[in-house]
Amino acid sequence: MSRVTPRVLKGFRDYLPDLMVSRERMLSVVTSVFESFGFTPLATPALEYTEILTGKYGTEGDKLLYRFEDNGGRDVSLRYDLTVPLARVVGQNANLPRPFRRYQVAPVWRAEKPARGRFREFVQCDVDIVGTGSLLADFECMQVGVSVLRELGVHDFEMRINDRRVLDGLMSRLGILDEKMKQEVLRSVDKLPKIGWDKVKVELEAKLDLSDDGYTALHTFLHGNLADVDESVVDMEIAAPGIEALNQLMTWAKSVGIHEQLVIDLSIARGLDYYTSTIYETFLGALPGFGSVMSGGRYDDLLGLFSKGDIPAVGISLGVDRLLAGLIELDLVGSEHADSDVFVTVFDEDTTEYAMQVATAFRRGGIRTRLHLEAGQKMGKQFKAAARSGAPFVVVAGPGEQEQQVVRVKDMETGEQSEVSVDQAIDFVRSKLESK
Amino acid sequence: MSRVTPRVLKGFRDYLPDLMVSRERMLSVVTSVFESFGFTPLATPALEYTEILTGKYGTEGDKLLYRFEDNGGRDVSLRYDLTVPLARVVGQNANLPRPFRRYQVAPVWRAEKPARGRFREFVQCDVDIVGTGSLLADFECMQVGVSVLRELGVHDFEMRINDRRVLDGLMSRLGILDEKMKQEVLRSVDKLPKIGWDKVKVELEAKLDLSDDGYTALHTFLHGNLADVDESVVDMEIAAPGIEALNQLMTWAKSVGIHEQLVIDLSIARGLDYYTSTIYETFLGALPGFGSVMSGGRYDDLLGLFSKGDIPAVGISLGVDRLLAGLIELDLVGSEHADSDVFVTVFDEDTTEYAMQVATAFRRGGIRTRLHLEAGQKMGKQFKAAARSGAPFVVVAGPGEQEQQVVRVKDMETGEQSEVSVDQAIDFVRSKLESK
Repeated sequence: MSRVTPRVLKGFRDYLPDLMVSRERMLSVVTSVFESFGFTPLATPALEYTEILTGKYGTEGDKLLYRFEDNGGRDVSLRYDLTVPLARVVGQNANLPRPFRRYQVAPVWRAEKPARGRFREFVQCDVDIVGTGSLLADFECMQVGVSVLRELGVHDFEMRINDRRVLDGLMSRLGILDEKMKQEVLRSVDKLPKIGWDKVKVELEAKLDLSDDGYTALHTFLHGNLADVDESVVDMEIAAPGIEALNQLMTWAKSVGIHEQLVIDLSIARGLDYYTSTIYETFLGALPGFGSVMSGGRYDDLLGLFSKGDIPAVGISLGVDRLLAGLIELDLVGSEHADSDVFVTVFDEDTTEYAMQVATAFRRGGIRTRLHLEAGQKMGKQFKAAARSGAPFVVVAGPGEQEQQVVRVKDMETGEQSEVSVDQAIDFVRSKLESK
Repeated sequence: MSRVTPRVLKGFRDYLPDLMVSRERMLSVVTSVFESFGFTPLATPALEYTEILTGKYGTEGDKLLYRFEDNGGRDVSLRYDLTVPLARVVGQNANLPRPFRRYQVAPVWRAEKPARGRFREFVQCDVDIVGTGSLLADFECMQVGVSVLRELGVHDFEMRINDRRVLDGLMSRLGILDEKMKQEVLRSVDKLPKIGWDKVKVELEAKLDLSDDGYTALHTFLHGNLADVDESVVDMEIAAPGIEALNQLMTWAKSVGIHEQLVIDLSIARGLDYYTSTIYETFLGALPGFGSVMSGGRYDDLLGLFSKGDIPAVGISLGVDRLLAGLIELDLVGSEHADSDVFVTVFDEDTTEYAMQVATAFRRGGIRTRLHLEAGQKMGKQFKAAARSGAPFVVVAGPGEQEQQVVRVKDMETGEQSEVSVDQAIDFVRSKLESK
């Protein structure tokens, strides 16, 4: 085996324990909120046949796939999101209950330019409801999203909602009727919060032949209110159901108390090809320009690509790594923690077995217990190692203690020591931990 | 977007909710046992520079890498295990505390021939202790492994332990001194439980020039006892520390009550290149021939490839997908479960908001609650959907209930119904769930 410089790929990262503990805590909150809404877990492979994935994320999206030929000559890609794999699963399992409500927490891969809070591998937390076109399902996805952020202690955020049909009405009024061109325009509009109107306009000018009046109308619309949207701005035949849906969603938001976090924003476009009506993006109030941490929408046509007949579906996705990066920037997530509650010293070789038995008893008692691994090291050194570990209690099980079948427990905060039986020590530590 | 046949790659699989719930339960037990031993979580990327991974798994292992050129022309591979990435992390983070005790639960990828319980993508659960050569660390890894299986309700299993140094002593006595040849022989011996002695012998004959007596000696050794191992069988200078370690481990096993599950087995070889002394594999008693579900050992030289100076390390790895597949074969894992505790009907459009508010209150009360998504569907149909969902309670919040600000709760098992306030309903359901 030969030496090699240790390095990690650009856009990828390790999570060392300090940060990982915070991330695991977040994930545990997220999944318990998902489950409180009756969603059940699903897992799909990281690798898919490339043909399953391509054509759903637009030309630019397709280019971001980690795509290669596997050892058997198959054309495969790492998944780009969790939505298309879900559509594939539903296509392969016609007997799944409907509506099918699943959540999935898993990494996805995109060969994007790395940036603040933007990685090439990141964990997505998705909920989706498959098999109903009911607007109640759209609303549940928004509600579960808002609940997740609130449960995570985030309150300064806005979920901006829009409807593709309103945008379609606009496109129709602007004379952009070609489906492909519409997608291109939406993908450019989607970059608005990231690159601003001027750059979006430059992108559009390269694609479109729109008059100055057209651009003015577009700009006014994107920065306007739903109340100002009428047939002079959009083709109402196309836009009306979207307008109605947005108003209904805001009414419901009031009735369950999430209206302060839900905002209609006509510039939300979502770059992906598969959205058909409601769409939403979520931004942290204190980090403008950071980009969306949670987004989704309804995609009623995607499942038809893998299934017989049309199957409507709607979902929302939280990017936990972006959110964590954001919360760290905002100092909302700390990283200090102890990796164990009790540190057991090992006096010498003759008492090693007794120390082991003591550690085993603590662990069986549900207490996170670290055994010192250098038997017979000087006690001063062992106590220093204990202090470094951050464990609030040190337990000594040396020859004197072994003879009397007791242990000495030291509270590292107060310095107090007591000599008690192992069972008493476990009860003592447990009650101290619970009262902390 | 064009239609495509939904299919999953050979050797890969989806976990639909029924099975996934069981798997998540397993993982939660596994991580809580890991934490009870003072291990903390780490995450590393799925993709690594290929040069980080190659040369550690033997020539055959290298061939099983999912290796490709990424969009930036880098030579990258999906990780093959969690041990080499750990070694890379330690090399990049010289300031990590020592001993560094981390656990990692994550998928790995191997382009192996799929077989019973053998997948190309599978989740490994690893604990490792880095930075101490103490045999106590080896023993902790074995103990945490045994504890995990026992906590999962598995009791009929054997962890077979061996020591590379004893095998090295044998190689020396047989005259196999070339390091590369030794690794080749060990890799063939490692296949013993899978393909049997006759096939192993054929493999060896293609590599080695051993006399008939040599093969007989090898066969006798591999099926023999440690007590029969002396200088006539092995080079004692090389083997003695291994023999001593194995005896010490068995003594400790007795003192913490895991000796019934720990067995010395001189045929355990572990195919990977990086192991240096203790090695172990774990087999389910009721599934001979199923292969190992948990394995590991000490690898004192691996970290030196990425770090300055030698850093000893030891670890153990549980293959949760293999184990789950095994437990399913043994009927030890069931799959029935309800995805929610309460099913809330939606009487009509006028009472939709009230039903939403009721569902929200239940969820805030910590109860998994599913809202019916088709407002105004006939109540008979809604109750049928409730029964299909498996939720033990149905809550009706129609116009009559709304007027009186109550709900009707139906216990789906007994058929009993009661009309109470929302708060009372939450208390009622919670107490019923707790007593179930």
